[in-house]
Amino acid sequence: MRDTFHDELDRIGSVLVEMTKLVSCAMSRATTALLEADLTLAEEVISSDAEIDRLYRETEDRAFELLARQQPVAVDLRLIVTGLRMVADLERMGDLALHVAKIARMRYPVSAVPPELHDVIRDMGEIAQRVVDKAGAVIEGNDVELATELEQDDDRMDELHRRLFTILLSGWDHGIESAIDITLLGRFYERFADHAVSVARRVIYLVTGEMPEPASSR
Amino acid sequence: MRDTFHDELDRIGSVLVEMTKLVSCAMSRATTALLEADLTLAEEVISSDAEIDRLYRETEDRAFELLARQQPVAVDLRLIVTGLRMVADLERMGDLALHVAKIARMRYPVSAVPPELHDVIRDMGEIAQRVVDKAGAVIEGNDVELATELEQDDDRMDELHRRLFTILLSGWDHGIESAIDITLLGRFYERFADHAVSVARRVIYLVTGEMPEPASSR
Repeated sequence: MRDTFHDELDRIGSVLVEMTKLVSCAMSRATTALLEADLTLAEEVISSDAEIDRLYRETEDRAFELLARQQPVAVDLRLIVTGLRMVADLERMGDLALHVAKIARMRYPVSAVPPELHDVIRDMGEIAQRVVDKAGAVIEGNDVELATELEQDDDRMDELHRRLFTILLSGWDHGIESAIDITLLGRFYERFADHAVSVARRVIYLVTGEMPEPASSR
Repeated sequence: MRDTFHDELDRIGSVLVEMTKLVSCAMSRATTALLEADLTLAEEVISSDAEIDRLYRETEDRAFELLARQQPVAVDLRLIVTGLRMVADLERMGDLALHVAKIARMRYPVSAVPPELHDVIRDMGEIAQRVVDKAGAVIEGNDVELATELEQDDDRMDELHRRLFTILLSGWDHGIESAIDITLLGRFYERFADHAVSVARRVIYLVTGEMPEPASSR
């Protein structure tokens, strides 16, 4: 039988997984809102960020309380401190989905993404969803293999990000405002994937005790 | 007399302050490199980021060791966990200075900033330096007043960020590549200030036990 302490630890893990689902859903819907100029969907993403923020604060409070009350050591301690950082990554990913939705809303009734970039942005949206889903699965199963796949998805995201710039720099005729939108969108998707990789790396660190090279300097 | 544990806590605080100085210097030099198209300075900022990353890892290790070995409670525990998050903010600020320097290097021998934007970017650079210097002073002195000032600096940064876009959207004639650079630069300075505010907020939380509203959703 588990004790209360470990039940509470499990509860933190469950909330983290739940947050990956909310964040995945938010980014997926934000991408659709963006490509299809769907104002209602954009608004939904924007208002649903409050729930992600709520879970973030709740998990923070719970982790601090556990630390203070139980004075955990070794593995348990590392679990909690790492959980605190993963929840911060996930909260940030929610913000990035929110930013995408805000650009969709700002340009409504027009799509912020010109036709020749639809494919690239759609692919970026799909990878974003895939990386956070995998990050969730990594948390659930401590699956080190999946974490490696995630790094490859991230490389693919970087490739798409470069392609975005190539298209922007090849006779762009949609004006400066649109170029600004696309530049920011590219950054949001790329950072989203970076944070998902960071979540997975932290799980690997918990499992193996070794931290892979940081996804920093991005 | 202080015990070893508290000496080690102090040492973490000192490294955090040292990191604010390195990050401040990096952003200040990156801004000069950018405005004056100074390749040597840009290269210096880029190579000096390794030192910030080193201090980040060292502080992380030290904090984890302290947590594991000493099982601190209450205030001490909160100090260490908060320190872990502040050091992550500072590491990220170093990355953002690095990004600015990389844009300076990429456009050399030309400045990435057209003349009509020099003033705005110079002001953003100055505020960036000011906010991180203040964050350092807040860490050193737990000065809640200064933390409030910092929020005002951050508002000013947001104002400048908006002005950047206004100029970009008022008959920009420097082409798309330059518009991309400016969009990214604006984002880098703005995020830099956000992280400095976040560092200061964490100190307030330590001192008062109350967390101000998060600087999230940016």
